Amino acid sequence: MVSSEIDKLINSISKLPGLGRRSAQRIALELLKHKDRFLIPLMSSLQEAGNKIINCEICGNIDTINPCSICQDKKRDRTKICVLENISDLWTFERTGFYRGLYHVLGGVLSAIDGIGIEALSIDHLVKRLQKEKINEVILALSATTQGQTTSYVIAEKIEKFQVDITRLAQGVPIGGEVHYLDENTLNTAFQARKKIT
Amino acid sequence: MVSSEIDKLINSISKLPGLGRRSAQRIALELLKHKDRFLIPLMSSLQEAGNKIINCEICGNIDTINPCSICQDKKRDRTKICVLENISDLWTFERTGFYRGLYHVLGGVLSAIDGIGIEALSIDHLVKRLQKEKINEVILALSATTQGQTTSYVIAEKIEKFQVDITRLAQGVPIGGEVHYLDENTLNTAFQARKKIT
Repeated sequence: MVSSEIDKLINSISKLPGLGRRSAQRIALELLKHKDRFLIPLMSSLQEAGNKIINCEICGNIDTINPCSICQDKKRDRTKICVLENISDLWTFERTGFYRGLYHVLGGVLSAIDGIGIEALSIDHLVKRLQKEKINEVILALSATTQGQTTSYVIAEKIEKFQVDITRLAQGVPIGGEVHYLDENTLNTAFQARKKIT
Repeated sequence: MVSSEIDKLINSISKLPGLGRRSAQRIALELLKHKDRFLIPLMSSLQEAGNKIINCEICGNIDTINPCSICQDKKRDRTKICVLENISDLWTFERTGFYRGLYHVLGGVLSAIDGIGIEALSIDHLVKRLQKEKINEVILALSATTQGQTTSYVIAEKIEKFQVDITRLAQGVPIGGEVHYLDENTLNTAFQARKKIT
């Protein structure tokens, strides 16, 4: 008895990440109930973003310009590339604001289970950037998961021929982390990498 | 560093029910990453639903026609009205398919906390329907919460002058429910309303 237009809308919404059929139903009803407040603004922002947002061909970020505003920014440190899994990681970095170098978004990590191989990630593209740009440090800021670390290792192997420092994020106790809540791996890693208090 | 178009999109998404900023971010990225698969179908179904879906002036359902297909269906039992809180409840009823009468969607329940009074619900409209239509039963299928039951009581008072049976959903042990998991109220209600096994 649900009309096909509503059903189509619920279907499109339920395909979005993290949403099931029930939440999609709830969202669809809310959208249709308050067209002026929800549906119309959502449509116009989808349209605007859909038309204007493009991928940066250098780093893989999204922006209204290509190359993106970060790649074009002459004030940034153009000798460093921070390699990230996703654009949301880039947003996290930019939110904190402590890093002023360039980025390279891989688009994921290697995963045998999900069938993501080297060719699916922009690793070759990173190699090409190192041939062209004057980089002296590549920071592999990937997740501290098995897949993330495997990916770091594969990238490090591919770029070790270049004259660049290859670094990765430090691993250890997270700030605010209580020792008795730490998992064994983190505690072990933090213990092995312990530092002198000077 | 997030461009204003993306920010606007994230904002519109995060206003939808059940979505916070983080999930909105994730959805926005997914939409922009796969424009053909997600963004364009979503936009077209929003547009179609936004243009075609209207409220039924009789029962408060949403449909592409007004009165809605249920109110227009001559095969349904036009002597019964099932009163519901929301359109999603109507969908639940229609999914099970055991009820073939008419509906009346209130648009919520009375709630002092949320400032929802009688005038915010379509109770007066229900009274008008009873004056015009030949109804012999009104089923108050509202939630078994304090607010739902208060609302049922208020509606029952308003319509008791009509020659109609006023009924409500039975309360008791849910099908599949185990006694030792029941809350005291449900158990008490079910015990008091116990039935003879014939």
